[in-house]
Amino acid sequence: MLTLYYAPRTCALASHIALEEAHAEYSTVRINFETNEQRGDRYLAINPKGRVPALVTERGILTETPAILAFIAQSFPKAALAPLDPYAFAEVQAFNSYLCSTVHVAHAHGRRGSRWVDDAGAIEAMQRKVPQSVGAAFDLIEQGMLRGPWVMGDSYSICDPYLFTLAQWLEGDGVDVSRLPRVLEHRARMSERPAVEKVVAQELA
Amino acid sequence: MLTLYYAPRTCALASHIALEEAHAEYSTVRINFETNEQRGDRYLAINPKGRVPALVTERGILTETPAILAFIAQSFPKAALAPLDPYAFAEVQAFNSYLCSTVHVAHAHGRRGSRWVDDAGAIEAMQRKVPQSVGAAFDLIEQGMLRGPWVMGDSYSICDPYLFTLAQWLEGDGVDVSRLPRVLEHRARMSERPAVEKVVAQELA
Repeated sequence: MLTLYYAPRTCALASHIALEEAHAEYSTVRINFETNEQRGDRYLAINPKGRVPALVTERGILTETPAILAFIAQSFPKAALAPLDPYAFAEVQAFNSYLCSTVHVAHAHGRRGSRWVDDAGAIEAMQRKVPQSVGAAFDLIEQGMLRGPWVMGDSYSICDPYLFTLAQWLEGDGVDVSRLPRVLEHRARMSERPAVEKVVAQELA
Repeated sequence: MLTLYYAPRTCALASHIALEEAHAEYSTVRINFETNEQRGDRYLAINPKGRVPALVTERGILTETPAILAFIAQSFPKAALAPLDPYAFAEVQAFNSYLCSTVHVAHAHGRRGSRWVDDAGAIEAMQRKVPQSVGAAFDLIEQGMLRGPWVMGDSYSICDPYLFTLAQWLEGDGVDVSRLPRVLEHRARMSERPAVEKVVAQELA
């Protein structure tokens, strides 16, 4: 039995969707970011980084979205959420690594600038550049990384819920989405999947 | 035959060491960051992100350190650079994902602040916080993530060259390394490995 710690409107959505797509047996625990529960002792005992997602497994606790997604794909091979051969698997990992270390990081400069600066003026300067930095990262996705109809082409994979999750934030980040028709099409296609509908409804309930 | 595109003093060192440890057949191409070669058309055709490392394989080009490291480990299983079972492999990926999305990103605020702000004052404000943000990330590594003697415990893995690579930058980032005795010990242990000696000498030649 797996337990996913998540908060609504965070990147934990990707792992939540993947668990559902994998037909895993799992439960969820919602962490309240409004009361800063992720920095409280109880949650820090689960994830000392004070972030979501965290996935409690029989063998220990996993963190970091690309790692959790790979774990879900490999633990539930029948769902075929990632290819097995080293090259194709590395392509999946490369895409997800780009999302976590470039796309999500660019987004975070609008919301969590105090990770990297203390000065209020600098935090505002960071916020001003978010449309450009997030937009540039999504341009690369639009222009080639997203093969279509799914990220890796014909096969749905753990890249898809992760891209869908970060694409939720585009309008809030001030990116002109009209230049990203393929990303929007992917987002709409994802929204229609039963697993995605179910998980999104549960997180936002 | 594999070809690694790298630049000295970048995170590409991790992949370079892993290729050597795996006894892979590979060649290297040095990209000159001083002339901004990584943003030139020739290199952008290899990696449109304009960054190193990039690994050219028979099937295509891989980017992103955690993905390249996993590819090397899985392609050369005799070298046993990563465990095979899904949970232990996910632990490896979680560690490497933390290095790329938190540790390396914190460091980059000292050198490449223009990724996230345009304003000179804000770039300086970012630089001022680097010792604290990089230090806090390494505190977590020191206090638990680094099991010892190697990152994952008794088995050397693709986590080790990556940690070694980022630990090169601690002093330059203004982190008081006296609080990181286990990280320093790991760095020294790594330096003694023949593969590491060889690769470091080649990159700095």
